[in-house]
This record gives sequence, structure tokens and C-alpha cells, in this order.
Amino acid sequence: MFKPLYSGSITSPQGFLAGTVSAQIKKRNELDLAILYSKVSCTAAGVFTTNQIKSAPVILSQKNLLKGQAQAIIVNSGCANACLGEQGIADAREMAKLVATKLDLSPEDVLVASTGVIGVPLPMDKIRAGIPKIRLTKEGGHDFAKAIMSTDTKPKEIATQVDMRENKFTIGAVAKGAGMIHPDLATMLCFITTDALVNVQFLQAALKKAVDVSFNMLSVDGETSPNDCVFLLANGLAGNEMIDFSNGEAFQEALDEVCIYLAKSIAQDGEGATKLIQVTVEGAKYETDAHQAARTIVSSPLVKAAMYGSDPNWGRIVTALGRSGAEVAEEKLDVYLSDVQVMKQGHPVHFGKEKMRISLQGNNVFIKLNLNLGEGKATAWGCDLSPEYVKINSEYTT
Amino acid sequence: MFKPLYSGSITSPQGFLAGTVSAQIKKRNELDLAILYSKVSCTAAGVFTTNQIKSAPVILSQKNLLKGQAQAIIVNSGCANACLGEQGIADAREMAKLVATKLDLSPEDVLVASTGVIGVPLPMDKIRAGIPKIRLTKEGGHDFAKAIMSTDTKPKEIATQVDMRENKFTIGAVAKGAGMIHPDLATMLCFITTDALVNVQFLQAALKKAVDVSFNMLSVDGETSPNDCVFLLANGLAGNEMIDFSNGEAFQEALDEVCIYLAKSIAQDGEGATKLIQVTVEGAKYETDAHQAARTIVSSPLVKAAMYGSDPNWGRIVTALGRSGAEVAEEKLDVYLSDVQVMKQGHPVHFGKEKMRISLQGNNVFIKLNLNLGEGKATAWGCDLSPEYVKINSEYTT
Repeated sequence: MFKPLYSGSITSPQGFLAGTVSAQIKKRNELDLAILYSKVSCTAAGVFTTNQIKSAPVILSQKNLLKGQAQAIIVNSGCANACLGEQGIADAREMAKLVATKLDLSPEDVLVASTGVIGVPLPMDKIRAGIPKIRLTKEGGHDFAKAIMSTDTKPKEIATQVDMRENKFTIGAVAKGAGMIHPDLATMLCFITTDALVNVQFLQAALKKAVDVSFNMLSVDGETSPNDCVFLLANGLAGNEMIDFSNGEAFQEALDEVCIYLAKSIAQDGEGATKLIQVTVEGAKYETDAHQAARTIVSSPLVKAAMYGSDPNWGRIVTALGRSGAEVAEEKLDVYLSDVQVMKQGHPVHFGKEKMRISLQGNNVFIKLNLNLGEGKATAWGCDLSPEYVKINSEYTT
Repeated sequence: MFKPLYSGSITSPQGFLAGTVSAQIKKRNELDLAILYSKVSCTAAGVFTTNQIKSAPVILSQKNLLKGQAQAIIVNSGCANACLGEQGIADAREMAKLVATKLDLSPEDVLVASTGVIGVPLPMDKIRAGIPKIRLTKEGGHDFAKAIMSTDTKPKEIATQVDMRENKFTIGAVAKGAGMIHPDLATMLCFITTDALVNVQFLQAALKKAVDVSFNMLSVDGETSPNDCVFLLANGLAGNEMIDFSNGEAFQEALDEVCIYLAKSIAQDGEGATKLIQVTVEGAKYETDAHQAARTIVSSPLVKAAMYGSDPNWGRIVTALGRSGAEVAEEKLDVYLSDVQVMKQGHPVHFGKEKMRISLQGNNVFIKLNLNLGEGKATAWGCDLSPEYVKINSEYTT
């Protein structure tokens, strides 16, 4: 039913255009300002950071999204526009206005997102000079993916086509992440487009649901940012029959798939990461217990450092579980590392250490726990902790 | 009123003896087995890990402490005796029994503590051979401090004398920490002795209070361990009048001071640490908000990495505050780094970056925030995050 599109991007769905420019907001001569545009007005949904310190673009976009409609998004990297009081709000508003003027829209139809250093004002002269230079094209999605990167080492994008009887539509998505990624919120910038016609209440509910099983199950370093947001624009140009709560299953599945793909890409490209860690918790008493346990384990610095060293130190996994808040009965606990059982009903199981070490040296580490207390199940993604993470983050603003 | 004792240790208070041996539990030829003994039975209190995965010695000692009395403690490093089911409990029990036989006590009067690798059984033959070799002496406190070390780079001990009118008593204490240190529990091994005569209910309450302002405000890496415990033994040999809730103020103050000293020593000696970070939060709406905020900031990997690089990236401090759960009003927030204001009422303050960088290169970093919302205040301690931390923790079990 789903068909991943070769070289897909956020401009794969019909009617979406994107364009970028190097406005010199970043120090290096890189793309750092981008616009996404739909030829027709979109039904729009958003999920935002839960951090109490919210960036100006997050505050503005939350407001603009209240009406459930939007037609363009402007994003800059290199500056977060956060912790700047009234000036920050005024700057975010001006960004929306500049785009509205360029594209003949109302400023309320423009969403704004920023990522970068906190506490430094946006260089508005550069943004004023940059926006007119942006040329919107059908091929602009890939450059958009590059322009929103910060410490990412590669762009993260995908598109998928859903084809069911008369109904055929496309979903495209792009994300940036790398550092400051943590459960409990949207956790990074992500922009999703679709040419499907979707009911606005269902669109918001579907986005929240997809974020909960993907970005909210992702942790690079336990941090959250004032700027995290996920936007979803649906322009209806696919000509499908309206998708809503009664017939939205395929749309939800495709959306989940796209978000999980991007969440894993972000974990894989975590700052300094050398491998992707996937933690699955089964048999939890409650679903929430499984979520908490999986996220706590994948966030544990000691587990992450052990995985960096390909060290099968499963005691750290069990200990992280023990402080997760999930109900645990040690004597019922089963733990698997790379499909090899290392703990059975609370007792250590002998395993070939050398063979295990070799299997942990791959790019993917799988950790599985069965709490044997109920039916709750969840999967979380993260990455190992390397000396490179510290290096990147001790030199960032300089 | 307090007089720190030069070269003080847990055997500084009257009637306490200690002894150690290298039982070859650790791979290297280091001290790894230690006994603390009081000539007379003590009133005893304990605070234990909140991790749901509890080591066998923690389970046994919690039980033995129910009666509020103890006379000896046996500790080993190199092996945690955790996650081993019934065998672990049997081994911890045998350790207590071996000490009881040696010292002519009841096994219930012996507390047990272990630290080291999880999931590996205690080498009981080595412990059986080691215990008879331990010679208890008045000077044994310093070697005891060495024997309980794991990844610590130096022993951590202190003693202080309280002298008020007729009442004069001594408190001695020793701790080990370094990794797996986090708020929310006792967080490491700590043993406190006093020759004061203290009411048992007051002793337990005073210990809990002291731990809350010291070890529970300490974070090295956000992890907790199945083995964390703090024991306090009071043998009454100082001949003071019984200390209880009516007259316990000086005792509480001295106990707090000793615990804060050790907490700071542990932070300073955190795995890979190059500097001590102290975070003070004032003006919080509630006391609990101040605690949560201070602990979240001091635990933040991004704040810790920035401090390692002497990078005045205060945006990370504010962001950690924003996800701490404490109530925050961005427009009221004041932030100070090394006594220089970097944020005033939610707006960045210009400061000399080069001068600030130099001041952050010292061994102590002070971060202060005023939320300007109330009277809540708390201080937390931690350390910076260095590539060395990752190195230590990716090679531990091998």
C-alpha cells in the first residue's frame, strides 16, 4: 500500500514548492534560509516543544495555527531567536510579513521556525536581503533539507505514496535534529507535506499520534529546546475523498512510518553518534510504563557509553530500568542484547562475551526487555555517547 | 562551634575501629574489603537507593536496620552483588555472618554494602579468606576510605568536632562516588560515625534531612545505582546528654556540613571531571521548584559540556531550566555566570566574552538563577562532562 518515493522530499506531494538561500546567518557560506510554499491554502497542524522557555517563532506559529490553516513556512538555521524578549517576537513577526508580501499572502498564513544559538538576535538585515532572493521550485525540497541543518551531518528527508482504490496521495517530510533531542516534545524541526485532503481535527490528532510513536520516543542527550516543532500541511490537491476519523487508518499508518523513519535518521545522526540504539520494552504492566522504561534506557549516559565501547554491560540497562519509574519485578525480568538473552527471570545468563562484543560493533544495537508483568509495549531510539559528542558541545558557540 | 579535625576519618569519633585487606576482588592488587566496628552497640540509621533494582546488601541492610541498632559494617568494592537473585542474598548474609563470628556479634548487628560491577557473583572464597585477615585499629579510617573506592581518583573523608558547653562530640564520615551519581537517592556509599548519644528517631530524621541537602543535590551523570546507601552509627561514648528533636540543632548542622563537604568532593571527583559546578536557584515559587531546577541544570549534558569547554553558553542553562518542571516566567528571569549577570528579566546582557571564558577556566564554576517568583531556594552540585567520562564508561567491564 505504501510506496517510498525514490529521492522523495517535501516538494514531492502536488502543489508544494520550496526555495533556499545562503543569507550569511551561519558563519560558513551555507544555505540557512528556506521557504516552503503551497499553491493553495492548506489545512495545517502543529506539535510544539513542552519546554517552558519557548522561542519567538514557536509562540508566533502556535498563534497562527489556531485557525487550522497555513500556506507557507519560513525557516532559518544559525540563530534560534529565543530568549530575546519583545525583540524576538517582533523579528519573527517581520519574517512572516516579509514572506507574506513576497507571496501575496496574509502574514497569519505563514508559519515561522528557527534553529541555532540561543540569546543572539536575528540578523534581520540579512533576512530582509535574503528573502527576495529565494526562488521557489518543484525541485527545491532537497535544498530545503540542507538549509535547516545545524550540527546534522546529512539531510533527512523522505516521501511516500499511498495508493488505495480511487484514493492516491503523497506524503513528504523533512527533519533536522542531532543535538538537544529528547522525548517529551516534538524535539526538533520537522516539516511534513501532503496533497491529501484531510479534515483539520483529524489532521491534528493524527500528527500528535505519529509524533508520540516517533519523535517522542527519541533521545540523543535528554535535552529539549525552546524551538522544537513539527508542522503538517495538507493542501488537498490529490483529489481524494476527505480523510477523517472514519477512514484515516492508511493516512495514519503512512504518517507514522514517515515520522519513525525520520526519528531513526535523527538518532543515527545524533551528535558524535557511531551507532543507532533501539530499545524495545515488552510485557510492561501499562503502556505508559513501557514508554517510560524504553526512553529512560535509551537516554542513559552509562548505557550509551557502554554501547559506544561495544561493552555488553547489561547491568546498566537493568539499572536504568530500575530508576525509570516503570513497575519492575526483578525476578521476572528478561533482557536481550543483540537477540542474545543476558538475563532470565532476574538471573544472569552466561553468554559468549567475545561474540557479543563483535555483534555490538555494528551500526545498529538492539536491546529488548520483557518485564513479564502485562501487555504494555514500546520502542525508543537513540544513539551511543562518544567523546566526539563532548567535543562538539564544548565548542559550539565559539 | 564546629572544628574540622586535621586528618579526620570515620575512626576519629571515640570507640570506632576499622580495618581493610586486599582480598583480590578487584583485578589490581588494591584494598577492596573493609570493616568498620564500634566497641559498643550503636543507634543506627540508613538512607537507601530509590532504584527499584536493589542490590542484595541493600535489601539485607534495610532489614537489619529496622531495629535501629548496629555495631559493624562490612563493605567490598569490585563487585556490586546486584541482579543475582537468591545467590546474592545468600552471599550478603554470609558476609554479615562471617563478620559476626569474627567480632562475636549477632549477624543482625552487621550492615553490608557492596560496590562494583553488576551481575557478577561475589567471589565468596576470596571474601571468606579475606575477612580473618582484617585487623581493626584506631588508625584504620584512612585505609577504609581507600578500600571502598571504585573509579574514584582519591579518598573522600572528613571529621568535625562539635563543642557546646558540656556537650562535646565528634562526627566522622567517608564516601565513595564518581560515576552513577544522581539526585533522587543516597547516590553512592557513605558511612558516618559519631560518638554522640542520639535518639534513634531523631537520628533517622537528621540523616534524611542531611542527605536531602547534600547527596540528593548531587549529579554526575543522572544515573542511580542499585547499591547506594548512607549509614550513620552513633555509639554514645562522648557522654553528652541525649540529642533529640528538642536540642538537635547543632548536631543537624554539623551533619549537614559533613555531608555537603562529601557531596562536593564526589562531584569534584566525578568520572572525567575537570571542574566542580555549583548551581544555585533563588526566587522559585516553591522550595521543590528550586530543587528541581537546580538539579536539572547541573545534570544537563549540554550545560556540562559547555562548562568543560569554558563556553559561556547560558542559553543551555535557561533551556535546562525550562524543561525542569519548575514554574518559570521568562520575562522575570535573572541569570548569573561566575557572578556576572548574563540575563536580566528575560533579556540577554552584554558581557566580556573573553574575560568570562578565562573565569570559567578555573576549577569551580558558579551558576546562579533568580526566578523572581517567590522564596524557594536550593543549591546543587555537579561536574563538567569531558571526553574522559566517555572513555572511562565505554571500557568499564573489560
